[in-house]
Amino acid sequence: MPEFFNVLPPARALEELFARLPLAPQPRRIDTEEALDRVTAAPVLSPEPLPAFPRSTMDGYAVRARDTFGASATLPAYLNVIGEVLMGRASTLALASGQAALVHTGGIIPAGADAVVMIEHTQTVRANEIEVTKAVAVGENSLRVGEDVSAGDTVIEAGARLRPQDLGGLMALGITQVEVSRRPRFGILATGDEVVPPQSPVAPGQIRDINSYAVGALVQRAGGLPIRYGIAPDDFDSLLAASSKALSECDGLILSAGSSVSVRDLTGEVINRLGSPGVLVHGVAVKPGKPTLLAVCDGKPVFGLPGNPVSALVIAELFVKPTIERMLGLRPSPQRTARAKLTRNIASEAGREDYVPARLVEREGELLAEPVFGKSNLIFTLIRADGLLRVPLNVNGLSAGEMVEVRLF
Amino acid sequence: MPEFFNVLPPARALEELFARLPLAPQPRRIDTEEALDRVTAAPVLSPEPLPAFPRSTMDGYAVRARDTFGASATLPAYLNVIGEVLMGRASTLALASGQAALVHTGGIIPAGADAVVMIEHTQTVRANEIEVTKAVAVGENSLRVGEDVSAGDTVIEAGARLRPQDLGGLMALGITQVEVSRRPRFGILATGDEVVPPQSPVAPGQIRDINSYAVGALVQRAGGLPIRYGIAPDDFDSLLAASSKALSECDGLILSAGSSVSVRDLTGEVINRLGSPGVLVHGVAVKPGKPTLLAVCDGKPVFGLPGNPVSALVIAELFVKPTIERMLGLRPSPQRTARAKLTRNIASEAGREDYVPARLVEREGELLAEPVFGKSNLIFTLIRADGLLRVPLNVNGLSAGEMVEVRLF
Repeated sequence: MPEFFNVLPPARALEELFARLPLAPQPRRIDTEEALDRVTAAPVLSPEPLPAFPRSTMDGYAVRARDTFGASATLPAYLNVIGEVLMGRASTLALASGQAALVHTGGIIPAGADAVVMIEHTQTVRANEIEVTKAVAVGENSLRVGEDVSAGDTVIEAGARLRPQDLGGLMALGITQVEVSRRPRFGILATGDEVVPPQSPVAPGQIRDINSYAVGALVQRAGGLPIRYGIAPDDFDSLLAASSKALSECDGLILSAGSSVSVRDLTGEVINRLGSPGVLVHGVAVKPGKPTLLAVCDGKPVFGLPGNPVSALVIAELFVKPTIERMLGLRPSPQRTARAKLTRNIASEAGREDYVPARLVEREGELLAEPVFGKSNLIFTLIRADGLLRVPLNVNGLSAGEMVEVRLF
Repeated sequence: MPEFFNVLPPARALEELFARLPLAPQPRRIDTEEALDRVTAAPVLSPEPLPAFPRSTMDGYAVRARDTFGASATLPAYLNVIGEVLMGRASTLALASGQAALVHTGGIIPAGADAVVMIEHTQTVRANEIEVTKAVAVGENSLRVGEDVSAGDTVIEAGARLRPQDLGGLMALGITQVEVSRRPRFGILATGDEVVPPQSPVAPGQIRDINSYAVGALVQRAGGLPIRYGIAPDDFDSLLAASSKALSECDGLILSAGSSVSVRDLTGEVINRLGSPGVLVHGVAVKPGKPTLLAVCDGKPVFGLPGNPVSALVIAELFVKPTIERMLGLRPSPQRTARAKLTRNIASEAGREDYVPARLVEREGELLAEPVFGKSNLIFTLIRADGLLRVPLNVNGLSAGEMVEVRLF
């Protein structure tokens, strides 16, 4: 029986897919307080400077720096205190030469002052008079207007995944709504006459649907919206009908097909009927996951994942996740990896990338990567692992003792 | 003015806090399909073996391995095909010596068979007769019952944060509900006469509330449920009333206090009235974030964070996040870090841990860590950064060219 996949290395396969995928994140305006982990669809510009007024960074006295020049513990400068700056109010105080005003951390620096002396470097000598025992430079212990950002600055780029500090920065500027990319909706359809819903008891020969849930959760983590379309039987008409419906309602489709060659062929034929150009890549040089189909149907990405749960998750990690990130317009960010020492030899074949589940163990201060071996049908090999160890394309395996990168889950 | 903090190193401070914090994750049964990123409250045991029946991992013929011994392309073994195993059904076939049955990937292996010959290693010679051109060992190309997990195995430990593959594994076993820890509710209360809600225009002397949102998002990411209680004015009675209400409705409380010494004192006095033992740690040897209060009030953790947004977020990352993880019963997992080469010298003082925001840049294949310098009042220093660079307790700074660990956001 012939091997009829045009097997491509993973990076090339992804290029093929992306080349035919229109890149058009769809913007949507949402409340900033709901925007954690969403991706900005446009650059965010600051409408105003931050801080908007000169502020003290210390408890102390606002002064004219020049009045403190040369001051020391043995030769203090003497200043008249003309009042206190209250928090949260504009100050009507205005300092002349030889004057100071009490100011708290975060308080406005009054007119005429250009620095703050820390309270620790002052002594009250009599009512309304202080000694300053340390000189300050202009601007010391204070923030100038716009020191954090200026009006018009790009404060957050387009394609950024919003973190806690980003929400804080937006709120600081009064930006209570933000333009983010709409989450791409991915239909997920399991196929296979042997597959039953997880709620069902299993009869001999049947297995429960894993991929709809595991791949769905991966879609969700990547920033997409998974929509499960249940389990379709292994016949052309049923699979085409279910796939067409799912794709028409979503921005992309994931078929978790059976793994037998006939079912795989069926999946390919169905995908080719969903839209043009149809299947672009028949098979990828990845283990596990070789029998993967990558397709674009009328501008929407369609994935035919292998039925084996480990293969399905590895392929979803390598192909579905970057596709979702591209649809979101997310800027590339470093992959989460850990560097560890391999504990055992791993055999591989040149010409394909191997992904081996690995557990990370710390022993005597050293991080070790222990491969979790197992057939790609065994979902619990992934559950016992902390990440995937990559054996590169043109390498005949890895040796115990080598330092390796583990791509963390 | 005296410095009245009993400043503790961060690890010691966290120990003090944890020693007085009851550890009692509260279990809650939820649907597995909603359980992504939740933390298991109890070990999950497998109710059944997986796979539940012997399965083929290939398209081919189920055989008795012994019948193929010595078979090769030049000297094939001949077997009678007694039928096909249909997907998803129990098979009534039973093999005798010299017999084979067509089987698909994932199909049940019929009685009497103990291995599968790949279809590529067979030829049909006439109706119901095949040549086998390669010998197989017992168990080859098949999964035995329980090869993934046995009945009664602990498949997921208590304290695990559920990932996509974990949901898949649970579904594979028909475990459609799972016991997870209830999310701890954290009240967040901003204080300061100068602080206004982000929706407000700001008058001179006023600033918008950043910390309620940034720290709230951090609580959410850590697995807690942030509940904002708005902004309390800087007076004892108002702050006590607002704090008492928040703490009575939540599992913990975060006060984002002003940074002036008087406001800090006020916060400490209020916390001591909320319950016993009250404030445990006055100040931590961390920059930024020294004026931090750690407290336990009647069994609930209470944090007095500095008002500066950078300090507040660094302290939340170092103290609030691990506290939430402990309340969830989360098992320790490796911190997300990146190893990079430092581009500039960083000054520090021995006796405190410094956290410097850093940007990661890849240049000529090398990962560089560029410190983002700025006062701790400048929230955008964190926004321009990818993580925090730690200068350890007993070190006088770091030098350009050193390899450093960056704790990623």
